[in-house]
Amino acid sequence: MNQIDALLNPKSIAVIGASADPTKTSGRPISYLLKHNFSGPIYPVNPKATEIQGLTCYPNVEALPQAPDVGLVLLNAKRSIEAVRSLSKMGCKAAVVLASGFAEAGESGMGLQDELKEAAGSMRLLGPNTIGLVNLNAGIPLSASGALEVSDLPAGDVAVVSQSGGILGALLSRAAGRGIGLSSLISTSNEVDLEVSDFIEYLIDDDNTKVIALYLESIRNPQRFREVAIRAREAGKPLVVFKIGRSEAGASAASSHTGALAGEDRVYDAFFRELGVIRVNTFDEFLDIPAVLVAGRKLAGRRVAVLTSTGGAGTLIADSLGVTAFDTPPPDVDTAEKLRALQGDTPTALDRNPIDVTLAGLQPDLLRQAIRILLESDSYDALVVIIGSSGLAMPDLVVGAITDSLDVNDKPVLAYVSPYAPDTLKRLNRAKIPGFSSPESCSAVLEALHFTGQPLLSASAAGATISIPDLDTLPGGSMDEATAKALFREAGIQVPESRIVTSREEAVQAARELGEPVVLKILDASLLHKSDIGGVALFLNAENIGDRFEQMISEVQSHIGRCPDQFLVEAMVAGGHELILGANRDALGTAILLGAGGVTAELYKDTTLCMLPEQGGLNLDQAKAMMQKLTIWPLLEGYRGSKPRDTDALAQVIVNFSALISALGDKVVTSEINPLFVLPEGQGTVAADAVLVLDDETEGA
Amino acid sequence: MNQIDALLNPKSIAVIGASADPTKTSGRPISYLLKHNFSGPIYPVNPKATEIQGLTCYPNVEALPQAPDVGLVLLNAKRSIEAVRSLSKMGCKAAVVLASGFAEAGESGMGLQDELKEAAGSMRLLGPNTIGLVNLNAGIPLSASGALEVSDLPAGDVAVVSQSGGILGALLSRAAGRGIGLSSLISTSNEVDLEVSDFIEYLIDDDNTKVIALYLESIRNPQRFREVAIRAREAGKPLVVFKIGRSEAGASAASSHTGALAGEDRVYDAFFRELGVIRVNTFDEFLDIPAVLVAGRKLAGRRVAVLTSTGGAGTLIADSLGVTAFDTPPPDVDTAEKLRALQGDTPTALDRNPIDVTLAGLQPDLLRQAIRILLESDSYDALVVIIGSSGLAMPDLVVGAITDSLDVNDKPVLAYVSPYAPDTLKRLNRAKIPGFSSPESCSAVLEALHFTGQPLLSASAAGATISIPDLDTLPGGSMDEATAKALFREAGIQVPESRIVTSREEAVQAARELGEPVVLKILDASLLHKSDIGGVALFLNAENIGDRFEQMISEVQSHIGRCPDQFLVEAMVAGGHELILGANRDALGTAILLGAGGVTAELYKDTTLCMLPEQGGLNLDQAKAMMQKLTIWPLLEGYRGSKPRDTDALAQVIVNFSALISALGDKVVTSEINPLFVLPEGQGTVAADAVLVLDDETEGA
Repeated sequence: MNQIDALLNPKSIAVIGASADPTKTSGRPISYLLKHNFSGPIYPVNPKATEIQGLTCYPNVEALPQAPDVGLVLLNAKRSIEAVRSLSKMGCKAAVVLASGFAEAGESGMGLQDELKEAAGSMRLLGPNTIGLVNLNAGIPLSASGALEVSDLPAGDVAVVSQSGGILGALLSRAAGRGIGLSSLISTSNEVDLEVSDFIEYLIDDDNTKVIALYLESIRNPQRFREVAIRAREAGKPLVVFKIGRSEAGASAASSHTGALAGEDRVYDAFFRELGVIRVNTFDEFLDIPAVLVAGRKLAGRRVAVLTSTGGAGTLIADSLGVTAFDTPPPDVDTAEKLRALQGDTPTALDRNPIDVTLAGLQPDLLRQAIRILLESDSYDALVVIIGSSGLAMPDLVVGAITDSLDVNDKPVLAYVSPYAPDTLKRLNRAKIPGFSSPESCSAVLEALHFTGQPLLSASAAGATISIPDLDTLPGGSMDEATAKALFREAGIQVPESRIVTSREEAVQAARELGEPVVLKILDASLLHKSDIGGVALFLNAENIGDRFEQMISEVQSHIGRCPDQFLVEAMVAGGHELILGANRDALGTAILLGAGGVTAELYKDTTLCMLPEQGGLNLDQAKAMMQKLTIWPLLEGYRGSKPRDTDALAQVIVNFSALISALGDKVVTSEINPLFVLPEGQGTVAADAVLVLDDETEGA
Repeated sequence: MNQIDALLNPKSIAVIGASADPTKTSGRPISYLLKHNFSGPIYPVNPKATEIQGLTCYPNVEALPQAPDVGLVLLNAKRSIEAVRSLSKMGCKAAVVLASGFAEAGESGMGLQDELKEAAGSMRLLGPNTIGLVNLNAGIPLSASGALEVSDLPAGDVAVVSQSGGILGALLSRAAGRGIGLSSLISTSNEVDLEVSDFIEYLIDDDNTKVIALYLESIRNPQRFREVAIRAREAGKPLVVFKIGRSEAGASAASSHTGALAGEDRVYDAFFRELGVIRVNTFDEFLDIPAVLVAGRKLAGRRVAVLTSTGGAGTLIADSLGVTAFDTPPPDVDTAEKLRALQGDTPTALDRNPIDVTLAGLQPDLLRQAIRILLESDSYDALVVIIGSSGLAMPDLVVGAITDSLDVNDKPVLAYVSPYAPDTLKRLNRAKIPGFSSPESCSAVLEALHFTGQPLLSASAAGATISIPDLDTLPGGSMDEATAKALFREAGIQVPESRIVTSREEAVQAARELGEPVVLKILDASLLHKSDIGGVALFLNAENIGDRFEQMISEVQSHIGRCPDQFLVEAMVAGGHELILGANRDALGTAILLGAGGVTAELYKDTTLCMLPEQGGLNLDQAKAMMQKLTIWPLLEGYRGSKPRDTDALAQVIVNFSALISALGDKVVTSEINPLFVLPEGQGTVAADAVLVLDDETEGA
């Protein structure tokens, strides 16, 4: 932590490979450090110069008068490695390596990156392939980003950590242009050492930072990210994420539907949602939402007052809020009365929202009072103040009227600026009044505030655990259906009564014992898609199962050239609603998937995901939330005369299944119950099929 | 048309109720006219002044030295009526009435609005409750909008017609701020006379206008809108619409599912889509998309080259394009070869897209050549050029490099500006290079170009017509199922064989004749929701239909206190896929609805709409397009081993149903086939139920 602090707040800086020409990339960092009056010593290192921009230049790292806190390395990839080795030897705390040509360049670069890591020893490294970092509160730029040419870089409460260097510059410039103050910007890029989570951890303790915005390409260490995300939430520092890679389908050849249905980007969605991390949908929201969160105001509900002095824009905002399911109710009688008193003799319609106070809009004192009345009103949870062209003529007065009213309570107050007015937007943001020029931004930021105010379901209770002996010694690979079902049954998942049979006669006998109707299936651990090869027959009885048995053998043989020796005869489940319950291990962890079952539902992609917590399975609240997210949920509850299903049992089977998956830990590759039948109320659920694929390479403990 | 021309290009203007104080709303219009050097005579009218802003002021309209082309009326509602009467008498061609307090104010205002209309006589009226209009090409502002305070109002090719005055000002200001040139802005507001469609018609012939942008609250005369929209499309002038009122559910108490499923806003969607009108989703797109359309370039496919000199932004754009299903393929061998030659000795990875030309980005001549190579490449249909902070340092050179390359062909070229740079965006737009700061805008405008390039299905063939005698004389109200089915059968819609029965014995006899299984239903024109009151029984045969008949009588009686005398016994349809086909009359016209049937599908809201054309029903192309829009379409085609359904017959039944609805014309209130069973290939479709409600008040012709 001390080393990261030295990186962000260095007392001395060496710039290795500095150029005397400030227009060159390698000349920029020193010129930026000088421009922002870095107070400690700056040591340019360049064998070809004796002085750079008025500073004594050293021929090499070894010649430096002291070990710098930070070495900013501007050399090419190979020479950077040597400079890093020298800096580390000397006792430098951290180095920033800008060179590209490392892991991002493919095979050869990966070798260089390993060398770089080794050369750094105990010294911390930012990069390589980074554009560096900027500590705006301390005024320390350690970067070659052209965005630092801007002279006006407002310091503030939003930290930005980006895996892309180019985006860092864009964000620096955009935040400055919009008056959104940043605390630090850090480009982690290749993350050979320091990664996004290291900086989140640091920023949680940084008093200058209230909100942490993350531009991510991938999460290299999900477990660590999870830990720091939870800590950030506990510390009241919201994480806002823009994650690219959304368009890569990423549905790898999966041995179950679950893998394909999950989809990499949807797993990221679930991962972030369950950690309370706000994932933004558009690049503009990536600054819009932090601008609102730093104001620190709380949204307790979805009722929004729209205060306007220009009719059209008010309607536009109300319509946009309505599209995103926010309410814009008219003022209650008491509030309307107070507003009417304000308007004096002017007849005004106060039975509606947007609340049009044409006159007040032109008189800051009336505007101030109208804002106070609306914030005090129990009818509203938030306020959007619309600034039209008349307000534009006197931005200070309007901004002042809003800021003066913020002490009433901590309901969110946003400003929507209707005309083109970048300067007014900047002024608003600087006054900590989030200002927007897009109606859709107002909705998006309110939605983010709403999300932030929701409790995390994962925190409501600990996930279930189960104890089943010998889980550790289960063999790898896929398990046959009977074995998997036996295990599921141990985990508290109801399965049909069944018999394993190997002959026509045994099949007939089994059908007799189980009662009608029965199902006949081939039993073979290596054949997961039984239906596709003719290996499943439904609605059988003791009369016809014999012939069907023979027929199945020849059908399966015609499909795959052989037929397994073993068959499963099972009591057939009737009257259940068909779902799918699965688990899939992914780079981010194990996701539990619940979905509507059957071919039709598959087309509708009616599925929801929840990540397994670190310890145990899901808790009941999480299970119920998953159920309620399905579009077919009303059918389970009993919709239009359909029978209510046993939703309590469904919640419990989700919990039990997830506890089993959790207990199996890293051994699980994929698992699936498809179909899972949810029977009428009081009758439970039945897992009519069971797939469990364990990792071949995981050693038993 | 001459009068509208006089309104937009007046030679003389009277300003009734002009104030000498240019800071007052009533003082602004004259000050704006003077500021923009209006060349004709301006006549202020105000009994309290003799001179206003250096112009001779007249005490009243009658005192004017000549009839002005346009009278701009700034008086209150009541006095406006008198001024309008005087102007009309005098021979003024058109008046603009700014006063509010007319129809928008409720009951009393409506009376005033009627008076205003009557007072205008043959003189055309804009408003009331309008902010006026601005002809930017001629430099004529007839408005009190504060947005006209801006001195720099670039004239251009985009006309804006808005039903909201406040939004007009915002758009004027935003377009100016972004360098998007406008031809005219017109606020129609209450539309007592001139409405949006009048101005579309005028603008189609206006050489200064290439794109028409409409901000709509409602369409008062859909038939006329349809006509002018078709003419605009034929004239190659795209219509871009922002329509509010999206959040009003508008699902009125409907006598069929169709009405509720349609939903007012979805009908608008269908209405616009079928006319080739681009409906935008966000307020920013309302200027983004016209900015692209005025460039007049054509998108032939979905393959986009992203040319960047800053890695991060390129990836961001490619990711955003991917989310909206645009392709960003790597350069073909030939194109890569040409780009490599350009780069000289610098090793560059040219096997990918975004195409990173770091060096070219800094050298306008290389950038120009790279742009030409990519536009010439057969691998791409469009190009997005990314401007990073380096490009920002020399905006003219970058803008010049792009404009110089536009002559290669007419593929669309967009610019994405990564840092905060409103001035560069303005410069780009002024040079007719659509420039954006949001990645999502790039996708949205390309999607709009794609949509504009698609042929209208309604134009592919004339809609079907049918001729059934005596349709005109059908009685109003709802029709009983048997009568409706007989009519449907005449229209070429297959219905089950059936018998009307009135006794237990007849029911048994009917079951015998029809063969098993049969359905028993109550038959009563006033009871549309038969299932809900126990009036439908399935899977019956001659053995059990008698008892079920008795049971139904008592069940229906227990529900509604009576039971109809007549019952329908029908052959039951088996093996069909359940759909719903309906028609619903709405303010915009009659919408045909196709949807997946059954309770589950209802939850998924898997429905699509198509508006009936002016003449005839839908054509086969439209019917097939509807089918293919359903999420369950793969099931109809034969998905994962399910049998293919008779999709040809389905298309034909959609056509036949729509032709019947068209033939019934305004008499139709709602009609529905629910369920419509689509049988296996070659076996047709069967309408298992039929609802038809005709208007009680429409007179037979």
